[in-house]
Amino acid sequence: MASSSSDIQKIPSTYKTKVSRNGNIAKLQAGYLFPEIRRRKAEHMLKYPDVQVISLGIGDTTEPIPEVITTAMAKRALGLSTVDGYTGYGGEQGEKPLRARIASTFYPNLGIDEDDVYVSDGAKSDISRIQVLFGSDVTMAVQDPSYPAYVDSSVIMGQTGQYQKDVEKFTNIEYMKCTPENDFFPDLSKVSRTDIIFFCSPNNPTGSAASREQLIQLVKFAKDNGSIIVYDSAYAMYASGDTPKSIFEIPGAKEVALETASFSKYAGFTGVRLGWTVVPKELKYSDGSPVAKDFNRIVCTGFNGASNVAQAGGLACLSPEGLEAMHQVVGFYKGNTKILVDTFTSLGFKVYGGIHAPYVWVHFPGQSSWDVFSEILEKTHVVTTPGSGFGPAGEGFVRFSAFGHRDSVLEACRRFQELYK
Amino acid sequence: MASSSSDIQKIPSTYKTKVSRNGNIAKLQAGYLFPEIRRRKAEHMLKYPDVQVISLGIGDTTEPIPEVITTAMAKRALGLSTVDGYTGYGGEQGEKPLRARIASTFYPNLGIDEDDVYVSDGAKSDISRIQVLFGSDVTMAVQDPSYPAYVDSSVIMGQTGQYQKDVEKFTNIEYMKCTPENDFFPDLSKVSRTDIIFFCSPNNPTGSAASREQLIQLVKFAKDNGSIIVYDSAYAMYASGDTPKSIFEIPGAKEVALETASFSKYAGFTGVRLGWTVVPKELKYSDGSPVAKDFNRIVCTGFNGASNVAQAGGLACLSPEGLEAMHQVVGFYKGNTKILVDTFTSLGFKVYGGIHAPYVWVHFPGQSSWDVFSEILEKTHVVTTPGSGFGPAGEGFVRFSAFGHRDSVLEACRRFQELYK
Repeated sequence: MASSSSDIQKIPSTYKTKVSRNGNIAKLQAGYLFPEIRRRKAEHMLKYPDVQVISLGIGDTTEPIPEVITTAMAKRALGLSTVDGYTGYGGEQGEKPLRARIASTFYPNLGIDEDDVYVSDGAKSDISRIQVLFGSDVTMAVQDPSYPAYVDSSVIMGQTGQYQKDVEKFTNIEYMKCTPENDFFPDLSKVSRTDIIFFCSPNNPTGSAASREQLIQLVKFAKDNGSIIVYDSAYAMYASGDTPKSIFEIPGAKEVALETASFSKYAGFTGVRLGWTVVPKELKYSDGSPVAKDFNRIVCTGFNGASNVAQAGGLACLSPEGLEAMHQVVGFYKGNTKILVDTFTSLGFKVYGGIHAPYVWVHFPGQSSWDVFSEILEKTHVVTTPGSGFGPAGEGFVRFSAFGHRDSVLEACRRFQELYK
Repeated sequence: MASSSSDIQKIPSTYKTKVSRNGNIAKLQAGYLFPEIRRRKAEHMLKYPDVQVISLGIGDTTEPIPEVITTAMAKRALGLSTVDGYTGYGGEQGEKPLRARIASTFYPNLGIDEDDVYVSDGAKSDISRIQVLFGSDVTMAVQDPSYPAYVDSSVIMGQTGQYQKDVEKFTNIEYMKCTPENDFFPDLSKVSRTDIIFFCSPNNPTGSAASREQLIQLVKFAKDNGSIIVYDSAYAMYASGDTPKSIFEIPGAKEVALETASFSKYAGFTGVRLGWTVVPKELKYSDGSPVAKDFNRIVCTGFNGASNVAQAGGLACLSPEGLEAMHQVVGFYKGNTKILVDTFTSLGFKVYGGIHAPYVWVHFPGQSSWDVFSEILEKTHVVTTPGSGFGPAGEGFVRFSAFGHRDSVLEACRRFQELYK
């Protein structure tokens, strides 16, 4: 179809608008970490079309969603074709029964009410909304290493200065070093005051979880400084024993913290998209106004609620059968984690994490994370995530995700044994 | 359960953090328009528990989703319980087959490729992401009246000054007056240059649609000024005849425009949540860098893709049967629109819109929109939307949404005939 108009369309355009590129986005380094990993995986598969590439990179769930949950989603979807079952716009904050069930399931007796819970399409989206909520003028702290969305969204909002290549940090962000030396919990006596403190526990990527005692310290630190903790508990169900599953288990936390969480890693909802954020009424700005009021405004202005079908799935997740099924899913991935931990331990590596989280954090002292990533990919065809992608204190580490079919994880471990024997 | 610890939780906390409230959010007036309407409706229902309240307010779809679409969603949901059907994270930009089908269905022969299409959870979310994309330093223009998310999200991003009560406008926004006097198309000779021009056609709330000739003027205006048009085509399928259904039908538009759209009003997806934004490769910042590259970064950093179940529904919408079913849904609501237009016309009102859009824009000269809203609600128990909620040029108008069951619309019209006879 070689019409002259379509020919014209093919001529590369040299026209530029007069709109300046957003200088904050220009500060970002390379691509967002996980698309970059995906790109390298695709490149590898082109190079080796016949090998079985195993992905222990992006923390992407692999096991089917329990039927009790998908059946509820299918029922809700089919109901939308009926006069009685049809629903249009729901509340931007989520459906009331789901908000109530989240409050009673995850925060029993913690003073979290249904209307403190904002259902979302996932924690990553909520992190961006939280950054829009706080705006450009706040200062922030992050664990180093940490999930890259915290830093990148902060840069995009203009909270930071430029990237400093020599130290691999943005100025105006307080990086709280979390390494084996400090049991992956920051030495708060060395941390400067910031307005916002992002804190993820159980942690992605190190797989460690803060103890009750450590979280009491963190809440005290926030309270002394008048800071707000943005607590990411997306892996809480992986925490064993007495390890806190919510920051709100710590007395006084409701005055200094909000918490974001997700169904992704419990029910295999990485593709279904469902999460939530809790903003307690007790959390207030310096002028005494509630943070929740502004968060509600952000949600109402820039979001229209999570998919009603996904919300039906979420409600089913929190039924007795759904909870049981989610515990089985979590248990399965914890089984994978143990296999990975045992393999690397037996090979003589220093292995961290893997007890309270589906991530295993392996030390390759003196080596560059990206070099180890490349070597493992080239020699074993296993995709991992380089620790330095999570921050400078991740250098020398590689994150192995426990999300995978059992036979893939076993096969990956066989290949690691071959490589490192 | 009167334990002392739960008693402590009930004592109102006086603690405040030292974090300053985001000054941009503080600039916003009252609540976001539609939750405010919902609140007034709920209040009315409490006052009159026994009357049948009819909602022609929020543009919320009411008709069941065609079965060909919900069946596909149910099938995808159930498939997630199988090893072969399970999928985790999809691309942040959406699933390839859906991106391709959107490009070929809505932009045939317009030079829009699959990878120019970014699938989202709806146009409202994308509008916020687009504001984050452009950042705080751009200037913007909006139609007056317009969908309130454009102005509110601009305020939140810090693109504006304070609200001026006397003129009911924010400083640093160019309000492009759209009234019967100018055929609801702004007099561009009086519009100052801005970086960004939000433009919605067919228009919410006025129900008017720009002609091809008018859009050629708009594209020329943008090109002369080096501006970027954010074109909202969420109601395109309601446009009749030769009325353009995409800004990309206008030659040269790809160099000056991006376009956001939605399945909400075609397939009844207001609750399912699915939309898309097209960012052509030809659209460039003043430094020559493609806008699409930065939009992709925003999407990857702050979003994890639309729900896979919703995307399966979207793909079914674009099958031959799905398209036919969507045309029937659109045709049904257009039937409602005609009933509303005929009713108000026969009652002697000046009636606008309703030909190319599911909104009827009725003039109540000399009256306050909120007063008319209140009178109609009080006397007919019908919820509408006051025109002034969309901007100062909407004062004296009321928007009637054509989204409703047929018998509700007929009953509402009977009540209007009684009120205004």
